[in-house]
Amino acid sequence: MKVLKARPITKERYKQLSEDILTLGITPSLTVVLIGEDPAASYYVQNLVKFGLKYGIEVNIAKYDTTITQAELLTLIEELNESKKCHGIMLQKPLPSHIDEDLIVNAISPNKDVDGFHPYNLGNLFMEQSNFVPCTPAAVLEMLEYYEIETSGKHIAIVGRSNIVGKPLANLFLRKNKTGNATVTVCHSRTTNLSEITRQADILVAAIGKANFIDSSMIKKGAVIIDVGINEVTLPDGKKTYVGDVAYDECSELSSAITPVPGGIGSLTTYNLLKNVYVAARLNNA
Amino acid sequence: MKVLKARPITKERYKQLSEDILTLGITPSLTVVLIGEDPAASYYVQNLVKFGLKYGIEVNIAKYDTTITQAELLTLIEELNESKKCHGIMLQKPLPSHIDEDLIVNAISPNKDVDGFHPYNLGNLFMEQSNFVPCTPAAVLEMLEYYEIETSGKHIAIVGRSNIVGKPLANLFLRKNKTGNATVTVCHSRTTNLSEITRQADILVAAIGKANFIDSSMIKKGAVIIDVGINEVTLPDGKKTYVGDVAYDECSELSSAITPVPGGIGSLTTYNLLKNVYVAARLNNA
Repeated sequence: MKVLKARPITKERYKQLSEDILTLGITPSLTVVLIGEDPAASYYVQNLVKFGLKYGIEVNIAKYDTTITQAELLTLIEELNESKKCHGIMLQKPLPSHIDEDLIVNAISPNKDVDGFHPYNLGNLFMEQSNFVPCTPAAVLEMLEYYEIETSGKHIAIVGRSNIVGKPLANLFLRKNKTGNATVTVCHSRTTNLSEITRQADILVAAIGKANFIDSSMIKKGAVIIDVGINEVTLPDGKKTYVGDVAYDECSELSSAITPVPGGIGSLTTYNLLKNVYVAARLNNA
Repeated sequence: MKVLKARPITKERYKQLSEDILTLGITPSLTVVLIGEDPAASYYVQNLVKFGLKYGIEVNIAKYDTTITQAELLTLIEELNESKKCHGIMLQKPLPSHIDEDLIVNAISPNKDVDGFHPYNLGNLFMEQSNFVPCTPAAVLEMLEYYEIETSGKHIAIVGRSNIVGKPLANLFLRKNKTGNATVTVCHSRTTNLSEITRQADILVAAIGKANFIDSSMIKKGAVIIDVGINEVTLPDGKKTYVGDVAYDECSELSSAITPVPGGIGSLTTYNLLKNVYVAARLNNA
């Protein structure tokens, strides 16, 4: 059983990114719109700031209270769309319930949409290439490609149908390229015979957001397991830690390869967001 | 076994459409860009003209020789985008090989994209609603809804991964609404164990474009079969006829319900295109 760690990939990719940024001649600049206090969001944003600083990307945080109105937020997005100093805009979820998320995502310029969540960028996932691929699905593809795990003709089951992971990833796996050509099944909360389907999967992607949801009864022997989940859990001693959507110990025994949490998909996601800021800087500076 | 005919649906929908058009107060106008001679394309376009005339939609055909250059075609699209007299633009496939199809589709204004193939409109399929849903996938949903065939929790296998049918339909079946919430598997030419998967399907959608490709060995007893294919075949007496992707006689015996060809999905597709022209006229006239 092979542990699919992000480290060797991020090491070489960040090196390349630093060099590309130097060649670009300007400092790529990301603005993170952060509304309210959410521990998981803060953790992700702190990582972006840390890695941005390290590799030459400016990360600004536009922090607002949850009382911000939809109109105020739209005005802010319009200002960022116009600003020559801002190359990429990231809208940190979750948004307060009084704000229409689709409306705000639609307002972000597709050329600055480093998350890849604007309909124009999502629609490009139907095509063979696109500027901004959502960061977590892109991380999954990079992981499989780096460790030379074939997708063509394989049955891939994705558990979870979010617009952030499950749905874009399904479309990417259907492309006619070296990380595509798979037979893809998307399962979710309404799936009636979940383990019957997951047990058929050559590659299983867990993107549910529930700690240890996938157990060994759901895995085919020799499957590749990609764990997208990052769930905060409290240990018996009261300390907090992060675990994936997959019960690692029991599932890894059956698998031929598995991504760890942390140190797996999450680390590559951060890299992809920063890489997209570089792409945005290049696009908007052309 | 129930035969899922389009006729009762189109009868009531066209009546509603005629009334909606009268209320609109202008004549919705479609321009079909038709390049070269293709029998299947001509057949579809003739139907559009016929039904358009009948229900109050103007259908203009911009016909070009296959020698048209990409630059000339782009100029034409720009003129149509600007024209107040043209509400909807339909680009009839196939295009000559010297023209980059993605580039041309991208050039069509999303507000006039009655085919629903612009990336912006395809991306909106990830959301719960959108202006222009591609016409064939929309036809499949209408058929299931009209005949009260439940999709929630059902395993739907789609054979074929085109940007026109398979991929958009997969995304639609994953939506959280009354024609969604299905477990969806997309199979295609690279799928290694096709019949093993199709035999699990509660609802099987055939969108391959190969006459009689799906045989009875690929069907679960009691499955619902949706046949999207329209293939021209020559009979022993030399006459030509149209058949679907499903071997109708042997498969219908096993199924609980099946769409006929012709008189099934194809008839609803024509209706959806014309309905989208009405939607475009309303949007562009607002």
